[in-house]
Amino acid sequence: MAFDSKIRPIQWVDGVSRMLDQTIIPYEYKYVDITTGQDMFDAIKNMIVRGAPAIGIAGAQGVVLYAQELRNKNLSLKEFKQQLLEKADYMATSRPTAVNLMWACKQQKDIITNSGSDIDGLIKELTDKAVEIEKDDIERCIKIGENGADVVPKGATILTHCNAGALATGGYGTALGVVRSAYDRDNTVQVFADETRPRQQGARLTTFELAMDGIPVTLITDGMCSYFMSKGMIDMVCVGADRIAANGDTANKIGTYTVAISAKYHNVPFYIAAPLSTIDTSIKSGKEIPIEERSHEEVTHINGKIICSDKVKVINPGFDVTPNELIAGIITEVGILRAPYEKSIKEAFEIHQKDLLQ
Amino acid sequence: MAFDSKIRPIQWVDGVSRMLDQTIIPYEYKYVDITTGQDMFDAIKNMIVRGAPAIGIAGAQGVVLYAQELRNKNLSLKEFKQQLLEKADYMATSRPTAVNLMWACKQQKDIITNSGSDIDGLIKELTDKAVEIEKDDIERCIKIGENGADVVPKGATILTHCNAGALATGGYGTALGVVRSAYDRDNTVQVFADETRPRQQGARLTTFELAMDGIPVTLITDGMCSYFMSKGMIDMVCVGADRIAANGDTANKIGTYTVAISAKYHNVPFYIAAPLSTIDTSIKSGKEIPIEERSHEEVTHINGKIICSDKVKVINPGFDVTPNELIAGIITEVGILRAPYEKSIKEAFEIHQKDLLQ
Repeated sequence: MAFDSKIRPIQWVDGVSRMLDQTIIPYEYKYVDITTGQDMFDAIKNMIVRGAPAIGIAGAQGVVLYAQELRNKNLSLKEFKQQLLEKADYMATSRPTAVNLMWACKQQKDIITNSGSDIDGLIKELTDKAVEIEKDDIERCIKIGENGADVVPKGATILTHCNAGALATGGYGTALGVVRSAYDRDNTVQVFADETRPRQQGARLTTFELAMDGIPVTLITDGMCSYFMSKGMIDMVCVGADRIAANGDTANKIGTYTVAISAKYHNVPFYIAAPLSTIDTSIKSGKEIPIEERSHEEVTHINGKIICSDKVKVINPGFDVTPNELIAGIITEVGILRAPYEKSIKEAFEIHQKDLLQ
Repeated sequence: MAFDSKIRPIQWVDGVSRMLDQTIIPYEYKYVDITTGQDMFDAIKNMIVRGAPAIGIAGAQGVVLYAQELRNKNLSLKEFKQQLLEKADYMATSRPTAVNLMWACKQQKDIITNSGSDIDGLIKELTDKAVEIEKDDIERCIKIGENGADVVPKGATILTHCNAGALATGGYGTALGVVRSAYDRDNTVQVFADETRPRQQGARLTTFELAMDGIPVTLITDGMCSYFMSKGMIDMVCVGADRIAANGDTANKIGTYTVAISAKYHNVPFYIAAPLSTIDTSIKSGKEIPIEERSHEEVTHINGKIICSDKVKVINPGFDVTPNELIAGIITEVGILRAPYEKSIKEAFEIHQKDLLQ
């Protein structure tokens, strides 16, 4: 039995996508219903829903929403499929870095292309797939949590960055899945959460969801990690991932790479927690991962108020890439992958290809 | 001729201390007059004035303000001196980490103890000393700037953390003094400013004062430094200091140590810029530097609004210590000190003791 977390950020309910609005946490805990494909595109882009696995689920649901809209247009099956494939490609561009989104849209495209059903039958297949991806994600997160808990020392303080929690997935979480499973076995485990500027997902989301589940959490600013590591107060780092290359290089929220360098300097093990669907074996190294450039206001404003001179320049990369040499292990649903990652990732895919959603 | 900066954060004007209120920049640019010793204590504690050299000046002025108040009490010279010495000791406790504050209060205590003047004469001597410390600080900053500019590569992008600028000193700045002198010689030099959570002095103060002086500045969040270093976009790091131990270990604003580790990983030279008065030769290493623990609201609130669960724990160290092994050089008014710092610091004090304010 895994730790019981009640947080479900995105679910398919009666033909609509019901999601927690993550832009207003911790101020409000409110669900919104997304009913059109374009609204789903915007919800992903504006981070109403965020986190690599969660936006995979969202993308799959978004394709269903588009399909429901196109049904009303009296198209031929061929026209329907053609237009829906275009919509699926468009949905996949709502954010560029997380590979789960592209993966989920690709799953739906494969159904559209290969299905022999009529329009109603096809929509049912796409709906089933979206629901399957959601349920499958929670199951994989629980396995990630159980595998990761095996390497959490007794009474450990785990540092995490951004939010790779229940809120970032179908539920339970990847990095915070490891935390939940570890806490379930040993309730002296605790978390240090980086604030994670600019969008403060660590402060706004990670402290919120851990407090909801009663897991002790200390909020620190992004620059403080080295201070606490130097004092021996951090036993391991565990973060999520938006895309992992075939050599283990890992794109995750901006600031992750800085934590990884500091962990290396202090000999604190730095782990990635992610499902196999986050690994993009089509790219050799992190250099090929596109990095999203986001709005400058995320840096210059907090809660709508400017915090700096209005004459500053800004560069706002949403992600950075942590090179494989800094990573102690990649915690997946099929076990913990270790260096050399080219080899361990290749083997994991060879052995478990059949278990991945096709 | 050094670069002409108009910013003067603290000056002695007609028996009062006139200071820029740094808690409201960049929203307002307003001077306040501090007229009592207790108000000066509070202004330092609440960071109306901040920055190691500036709070040294403030401490010296604060002792004068106390002296002016005690003059009205009809004390004997002996009682006056005794009470004023106690006030000077109290003033030195308004913040614990920056050594300049203790140094400046000690300067005033030496005058109180050793002066042969009557009360009015003594107050004049203390006033002269406060004004001398202020003017001396600007001159030393300009020398620091000129010495530092010698090691700034052509067209360099200089990363800085917190605010070690005109606003942190009598004027001109230490780390930003290096920037001003370098920009004066080569106007293709530019600055990347870390936001510096929790109090955002980089965003609020550094971008403000550089923009005022027309020096190009890009604001980044604290976690981004490694990303830009990995892209080859940072040529050197230059920061201030709150206290430097005899072995070169340097206390500076929390987050500095993280930047220093990242700079080492990327082979980017990391410099400290500070006057000799920031070096505390009475302590052997950074382990002996007391670290101020500040209010938890600085971490949990921004502009008065909470940014996290109200159930989080918080630890808020105001400073961290960068070990000497990460420091490429300490830029002082008498030249750039290099490793081994035990030796270079000892020699600098032997040669230049006579130049320090006594």
